[in-house]
Amino acid sequence: MTWTRYIRFLDARGQPRQGNALVDSGDSLIEALQAGTLAAEELIGKDLFSATRTGQVLRVHKLLGPLSAEDVPIIRAVGLNYVKHIQETGRKPPPYPSIFIKPSRTVTGWDSDVSVPSIAQKDQLDYEGELAIVIGKEGKDIPAVDALDYIAGYAVANDVSARTWQRDPKFAGGVPQWCFSKGFDTFCPIGPMIVSPEVLGPAANLGLQTRVNGEVRQDTSTGDLLFGVKEIVAFVSQGTTLEKGSVILTGTPGGVGMGLSPPNWLRDGDVVEVSIESIGTVRNKMVFAREPGNRRTVL
Amino acid sequence: MTWTRYIRFLDARGQPRQGNALVDSGDSLIEALQAGTLAAEELIGKDLFSATRTGQVLRVHKLLGPLSAEDVPIIRAVGLNYVKHIQETGRKPPPYPSIFIKPSRTVTGWDSDVSVPSIAQKDQLDYEGELAIVIGKEGKDIPAVDALDYIAGYAVANDVSARTWQRDPKFAGGVPQWCFSKGFDTFCPIGPMIVSPEVLGPAANLGLQTRVNGEVRQDTSTGDLLFGVKEIVAFVSQGTTLEKGSVILTGTPGGVGMGLSPPNWLRDGDVVEVSIESIGTVRNKMVFAREPGNRRTVL
Repeated sequence: MTWTRYIRFLDARGQPRQGNALVDSGDSLIEALQAGTLAAEELIGKDLFSATRTGQVLRVHKLLGPLSAEDVPIIRAVGLNYVKHIQETGRKPPPYPSIFIKPSRTVTGWDSDVSVPSIAQKDQLDYEGELAIVIGKEGKDIPAVDALDYIAGYAVANDVSARTWQRDPKFAGGVPQWCFSKGFDTFCPIGPMIVSPEVLGPAANLGLQTRVNGEVRQDTSTGDLLFGVKEIVAFVSQGTTLEKGSVILTGTPGGVGMGLSPPNWLRDGDVVEVSIESIGTVRNKMVFAREPGNRRTVL
Repeated sequence: MTWTRYIRFLDARGQPRQGNALVDSGDSLIEALQAGTLAAEELIGKDLFSATRTGQVLRVHKLLGPLSAEDVPIIRAVGLNYVKHIQETGRKPPPYPSIFIKPSRTVTGWDSDVSVPSIAQKDQLDYEGELAIVIGKEGKDIPAVDALDYIAGYAVANDVSARTWQRDPKFAGGVPQWCFSKGFDTFCPIGPMIVSPEVLGPAANLGLQTRVNGEVRQDTSTGDLLFGVKEIVAFVSQGTTLEKGSVILTGTPGGVGMGLSPPNWLRDGDVVEVSIESIGTVRNKMVFAREPGNRRTVL
């Protein structure tokens, strides 16, 4: 990649642009954005993989998400992967990453609303702050030592989850509904920029924090990951082609609403922020959808 | 759709073509193919969704798969869904379909080899004969009564599965690895043609048979489906956009190798055939891959 901190934005004339953000951390991105001083070196090209620098510096008028659903063929995600969180739950560390899949239409912007369908609203909506890997080059059977060559960069993600569908075995004949419960449209905010391995290496020791309406709920470091970025890429690519643009979520630490006593579920209008040092913050309002009555299926 | 039985093939000059097969059942497709008499009315257009008839009749030289990985954004699949099979296993029928996801690179041709990575070869490889739904029009929150409007047609599929990865909780911290175990490249043969709802309606009473090296293993009818085609489309589209070209597998009946006593796993070179009345047969050889030793990761 010719960039280190990829963003998409509207320029002063409202034109969509790609750029290399002229900042040195995630905090400074958000601060410059709020101050109206965020600037980027213009990138041109079809997408983030082919984008090249023009040398021209542009003012960012409105920051967009770095990826849209069309850019992301699929999202793979790892279940339990933070050591302290696994110990908290009284489990033994699993010998392999546990993988599930979110469809590409879950992708939404860094500050877009999450639209929650009626069947996912009652006493079950939850957040999961996560480090996201964006694959930059197609690969299969990738050895861990080569994994960074296949990574375009890292972003912040929220693996929004409907826990009743995910966990209650009676909902699914004894099989947890990981894919369905986490697969609704807009259930994966990603952003605000994509930072390359040139800057972050294997992203092995970055602070991660999740806040709900400003209250800190998750606060840890990617240093606590059981399976790191290289191991995850090697594992999921076994016999499996990872396509360019596909995303891998690396798991969430302790502090999710489901794990609180009593559980503390997200409500209509709640704002969830996930921040990762050096990458920035995704900030999304939960908006409970009101479907027409005749569209409420459930069976 | 302007077609009722969509195929892709090479004509006598080796050119790839699309066509409307001039047959009246799945058996007659395979018979005509073996006799070298299979003919089709030519279709032209970018893909199966935009294809229009030319009126010209062409001889089919070699039948290709009706879908390639590029045509299929994602595959959703239903777990336990055949009533007798659920009763056999001593379970109660689940109140909702259990959904998992296979990546698009699992798609392969109706008679292509299935490439089995080394980590899925030992005492675990299994077949699942299934009716596949191909979505023809993008939709979300689709009521069951409107479901057929969103279906381009039906095909035969084999949901190839690596059972150790799927079932053994120690492999994944207690969470079954449905997506990983069924998600290797080429683990979803689909074909041989796509037959429209104009011919098959809701595909509610079609014979389905699976054979391994000619021996019958699964033999039932889609009439035994707990959740039918319309109910499945309604369920999975709740809050979730079904994209054009996406595939939904409807579940497998009893008779899989895992359920035999003792279990009877697929071996290198085994040929699995799945046939559905009115649609035809997919016939695929299992080929155990020999990766270079340094690519055997597993962790």
